[in-house]
Amino acid sequence: MSSPASALPHVVVLGAGFGGLFFAKAFPSHLARVTVVDRQNHHLFQPLLYQVATAGLSAPDIAQPIRSILRDKPNLAVLMAEVRGIDLTGRRVELDHGTLDFDYLVIALGGRTTYFGHDDWEPFAPGLKTLDDAVRLRRNMLLAYERAEAESDPARRQELMTTVVVGGGPTGVELAGTFAELARTVLYRDFDRIDPRQARIILVEGGPRILATFPEDLSASAQRQLADLGVEVRLNTRVTAIRAGEVELDGARLHAGNIVWAAGVGASPVTRSLGVELDRAGRIKVRPDLSVPGHPRVFAVGDLAALTDRNGVVVPGVCQGGMQGGAHVARLLAYELAVGPRRPEEREAFAYHDKGNMATIGRSKAIAQIGRLHLSGLPAWVAWLGVHLIFLLGLRNRLSVFLSWVHSYFTYRRGARIILGRDAPGS
Amino acid sequence: MSSPASALPHVVVLGAGFGGLFFAKAFPSHLARVTVVDRQNHHLFQPLLYQVATAGLSAPDIAQPIRSILRDKPNLAVLMAEVRGIDLTGRRVELDHGTLDFDYLVIALGGRTTYFGHDDWEPFAPGLKTLDDAVRLRRNMLLAYERAEAESDPARRQELMTTVVVGGGPTGVELAGTFAELARTVLYRDFDRIDPRQARIILVEGGPRILATFPEDLSASAQRQLADLGVEVRLNTRVTAIRAGEVELDGARLHAGNIVWAAGVGASPVTRSLGVELDRAGRIKVRPDLSVPGHPRVFAVGDLAALTDRNGVVVPGVCQGGMQGGAHVARLLAYELAVGPRRPEEREAFAYHDKGNMATIGRSKAIAQIGRLHLSGLPAWVAWLGVHLIFLLGLRNRLSVFLSWVHSYFTYRRGARIILGRDAPGS
Repeated sequence: MSSPASALPHVVVLGAGFGGLFFAKAFPSHLARVTVVDRQNHHLFQPLLYQVATAGLSAPDIAQPIRSILRDKPNLAVLMAEVRGIDLTGRRVELDHGTLDFDYLVIALGGRTTYFGHDDWEPFAPGLKTLDDAVRLRRNMLLAYERAEAESDPARRQELMTTVVVGGGPTGVELAGTFAELARTVLYRDFDRIDPRQARIILVEGGPRILATFPEDLSASAQRQLADLGVEVRLNTRVTAIRAGEVELDGARLHAGNIVWAAGVGASPVTRSLGVELDRAGRIKVRPDLSVPGHPRVFAVGDLAALTDRNGVVVPGVCQGGMQGGAHVARLLAYELAVGPRRPEEREAFAYHDKGNMATIGRSKAIAQIGRLHLSGLPAWVAWLGVHLIFLLGLRNRLSVFLSWVHSYFTYRRGARIILGRDAPGS
Repeated sequence: MSSPASALPHVVVLGAGFGGLFFAKAFPSHLARVTVVDRQNHHLFQPLLYQVATAGLSAPDIAQPIRSILRDKPNLAVLMAEVRGIDLTGRRVELDHGTLDFDYLVIALGGRTTYFGHDDWEPFAPGLKTLDDAVRLRRNMLLAYERAEAESDPARRQELMTTVVVGGGPTGVELAGTFAELARTVLYRDFDRIDPRQARIILVEGGPRILATFPEDLSASAQRQLADLGVEVRLNTRVTAIRAGEVELDGARLHAGNIVWAAGVGASPVTRSLGVELDRAGRIKVRPDLSVPGHPRVFAVGDLAALTDRNGVVVPGVCQGGMQGGAHVARLLAYELAVGPRRPEEREAFAYHDKGNMATIGRSKAIAQIGRLHLSGLPAWVAWLGVHLIFLLGLRNRLSVFLSWVHSYFTYRRGARIILGRDAPGS
């Protein structure tokens, strides 16, 4: 097209997580004006967020400015703003400062921590979705040990050295394993009164096994590897209440210096205002081509889209789902803008390619499923390390992260054990 | 000594900045029980704080847990707590949680940003003393550009791209130079509507020259190097008011998206409750051996001590002053505990050894004074780089910082351009 940029259709992308970013990278942006909106200035490499929460990496190690990732794309603007509402029929997005009219819309706002109707638990059991969350978890964890060290009552000291992680999915497993490892291999040398090797780390799961999306043999292996690190795994256990420094498990009270919520992820609440059909988690039930029913120029990708793909696979809420969904929509739209009308949506149906799943538990401890291959322990951990290094965006981050890991591996030290934030140790 | 630890005298060290840390490292801790108190869990490498504020380094790159630095010292405990008051005659320190009795006390609480009676300016023109401050400055700076990009009024856009740094000492010069460099060599590629190369960076100094503690030729060179980067230096200019997004210079209003206060450092306010003589900045006028007048078992070192040393040199408020003061007191106390009574304080007088002073302005831009040697530009910058790498504590940090610098130098990118914190872009 040789028309001036202002005559081009306007594609608005909401969210620069894996879905939005992979759309923006794959879409040939000479075909339209593209505006990418995110409430943060950075794309976050979410799979390593738990490493920031457990003091292995710095916040900037796993984040990169969206502007800098997309700087070479013509006709593409990045806007840091919060989405307040979406008017699908009026083709307009309402932001905290101003509005955006669109011809095409890609909704990729991702998920957020949900407490299943118990939002009052949030202050006492924060979740892990953003860098701010990770810095907060790191602070809470390190402050709990500082408070234990300053405490003269031994029973209270043991309570402060108790960590409860709610939710046995990948995030919960990664956090519990790494908290345990940190206490036993790093922190124990730093304190006088307390022995962090005596810290209790409890992983609570409502269902009959952890990592339920993995095959059973890998779940069992992960549980053994967690036990090796001293993590207590409690299956079939429900959280009935959470208060400051206290969690109730099936009604039994447990005091803890550090409580983390890794149990619930729901879609961004923006979906509720769209007037389209949602699943129980608030995700948009998209058409096979990832368009929103009744709105062929609106697409939803990533964690806020619910779909069983054309091969009957339920697309999981993982990075790969967002990446592949974003790229799929980019291809569809490019075809429509460069060639002509799309084929019927059934013939453009999205097919999810499962490239394997991994969860890490600690140093040399992990599980991985790659096709029919099931790996545990060191081989899984090496695979996990390689995949994450390759995927990390940007040279600087990759080198710096690699260096941190090599250094932690050989010295058992963790460099980012820094408490940021104005919270006093007693608060 | 073979007496049990509890029979040993108790030395309390308040603050783990350079003064407190160098005392703790130099003191032979088999001679006493030592308790190091700090309100943070980390020692901060303050000379590089401006690099965090300007997105060159991550917060954990320049900080290290105090526990981990001092972990090999016997009889030494680290306590994370805030000092509420000091009772010199009762030999007791009041903390936010509990009290500590001492036999000897080393006060090394350092300085804090002061607004010369205008504390109401703080919310609009934050200072730079802590990691939290640095993360806040980085956020304010990056948000100002984001807001400018989202702004449709060109005049308002230019205002948002205006940064005012108040204070022409080393911190102000480093910030102004690095802000300018960041805008002109990194940020300009990232935006569409605005051109950060058009950003105004204004450095305001009340006196007749910047870097007044340096020789005049180096001040002049620094000012030329700042001008090369496009920084406007305003000498003999007073700040008469600061409001949200607005500063008054000699009564003339100037709108700015980012205002930073680098003008005033005063002693920690704890000094005011001691009942001893202070100078105008609130610093304790110590005896020649760094003891507090009338309290031979109490010492003050670093930024809250005021002293002209035995060679007639006014000990400056820089890292070296704290390091040397801390080590001096460690030697005095070790002698007293291991051998016997100290000699008269005049014979134990502290002598400051000036190892040189440096200020950096940008890439290949700096000034340095080492004895009679005056360096400018690239040689000064290389000297600055080497000295700071050598001094940085801990292998992990040194490598990671070095890597960041090498990468920034060759690519003109800055890795830590991450906005943390819950402030919305409009707030």
